[in-house]
Amino acid sequence: MKLLIGDKNYSSWSMRPWLLLTHFGIPFDEVLIHLNEADTNAKIRALAPRGSGKVPCLIDDAGRPVWDSLAIAETLAERFPQHALWPRDAAARAHARSVSAEMHSGFGELRSNMWMNIRASFPGKNATAGVLADIARIEALWSDCLQSYGGPFLFGEFSIADAMYAPVAMRFNTWKPALSATAAAYVERLTALPAVNAWIDAARKETHAVPYQDECP
Amino acid sequence: MKLLIGDKNYSSWSMRPWLLLTHFGIPFDEVLIHLNEADTNAKIRALAPRGSGKVPCLIDDAGRPVWDSLAIAETLAERFPQHALWPRDAAARAHARSVSAEMHSGFGELRSNMWMNIRASFPGKNATAGVLADIARIEALWSDCLQSYGGPFLFGEFSIADAMYAPVAMRFNTWKPALSATAAAYVERLTALPAVNAWIDAARKETHAVPYQDECP
Ligand SMILES: N[C@@H](CCC(=O)N[C@@H](CS)C(=O)NCC(=O)O)C(=O)O
Ligand SMILES: N[C@@H](CCC(=O)N[C@@H](CS)C(=O)NCC(=O)O)C(=O)O
Repeated sequence: MKLLIGDKNYSSWSMRPWLLLTHFGIPFDEVLIHLNEADTNAKIRALAPRGSGKVPCLIDDAGRPVWDSLAIAETLAERFPQHALWPRDAAARAHARSVSAEMHSGFGELRSNMWMNIRASFPGKNATAGVLADIARIEALWSDCLQSYGGPFLFGEFSIADAMYAPVAMRFNTWKPALSATAAAYVERLTALPAVNAWIDAARKETHAVPYQDECP
Repeated sequence: MKLLIGDKNYSSWSMRPWLLLTHFGIPFDEVLIHLNEADTNAKIRALAPRGSGKVPCLIDDAGRPVWDSLAIAETLAERFPQHALWPRDAAARAHARSVSAEMHSGFGELRSNMWMNIRASFPGKNATAGVLADIARIEALWSDCLQSYGGPFLFGEFSIADAMYAPVAMRFNTWKPALSATAAAYVERLTALPAVNAWIDAARKETHAVPYQDECP
């Protein structure tokens, strides 16, 4: 299996399936394509002509592309039932799918104003009203999950739901908005997870830059 | 089971799970909440306090909320295995999940410029360059699916993937952008599906209006 990803420093969507494969010990080869270059799209399309032209994209053992972070996550959950990618309990799983899908198509204010840039530090910046509303909703749903299932991760053990929110934790490390103690502790636990740590380490060592994301006016 | 939805004329996200339940003959009660009112959000939260405050939201037989169109679709597919909500073939299913997730978090230009308003007719309007790029991608992926699986729907029989794109067909009926013959014929087949027809009929009979979506400057 191959996973096409973008630069680890910037590619929030790529981080999700990479964490799942790494955390659960599913073997894969990584193909890193630099973002924001003239040929980024063409390179992705050359490897997955049927796909969206975006990363992440999984090329499975039969050579078939599976694209989009959430579709990759569902497909891995189905193909590797020996690993609890989703919580094993049906009610918890429906809840985990709800918060994962809410992340997948939501939180536009947070995503556009506090982009992921692991190497950067922009504390106190861009905390607009829209961003604060997104953060309030994220704190409420994290705390509901952590209380309902007892932690340390959203549904007990690390699952797809945590992978979906891991880039949010990276954003919070960079932009440092005010967080509740519960949310701050969860961000710390996520950041300390070995798979997350490995991604952060690699991001710090990268040399390819996306200049407009390295500055915050 | 209860499904909370918005006005059928406007609520593109609500249409998706409603079509699935209706098409596959899964019994449910519908709870319609008018969109764009001062108390829209409060009404949704009162019925599903844990949720996102948006529709659609499914309240299952145990009284538990499952929110977000895609999470509801996955949960129904899992709970009603007697119906082929996803294609039965694993490779087709991974492909169907990819195009469904691509729709779920993408096509922002189409979604914001050609909103769903089933009763309205805005032919030729708002066909910006961004919208045309989204439409070109949609045409390419539809035609890939229809060719690969032989039609009449994206993966043969009607599935979650078609439900995800049904509101796109409604937008095309309202805004009438130029479409390939393949795409136009697929839009016609989707529009003629009994479940889609029932939704359209109900939308035409509604009297609640969202004024800013009834005009296209
Ligand atoms: N909905 C997609 C989003 C994928 C996405 O936007 N990827 C970005 C990088 S994080 C990308 O490939 N950009 C390159 C391009 O659009 O050319 C997912 O969940 O995977
Ligand atoms: N990602 C969500 C989107 C849901 C959504 O945006 N719903 C709109 C109506 S179509 C809504 O509830 N708006 C009311 C509000 O935000 O107060 C899904 O797929 O279900």
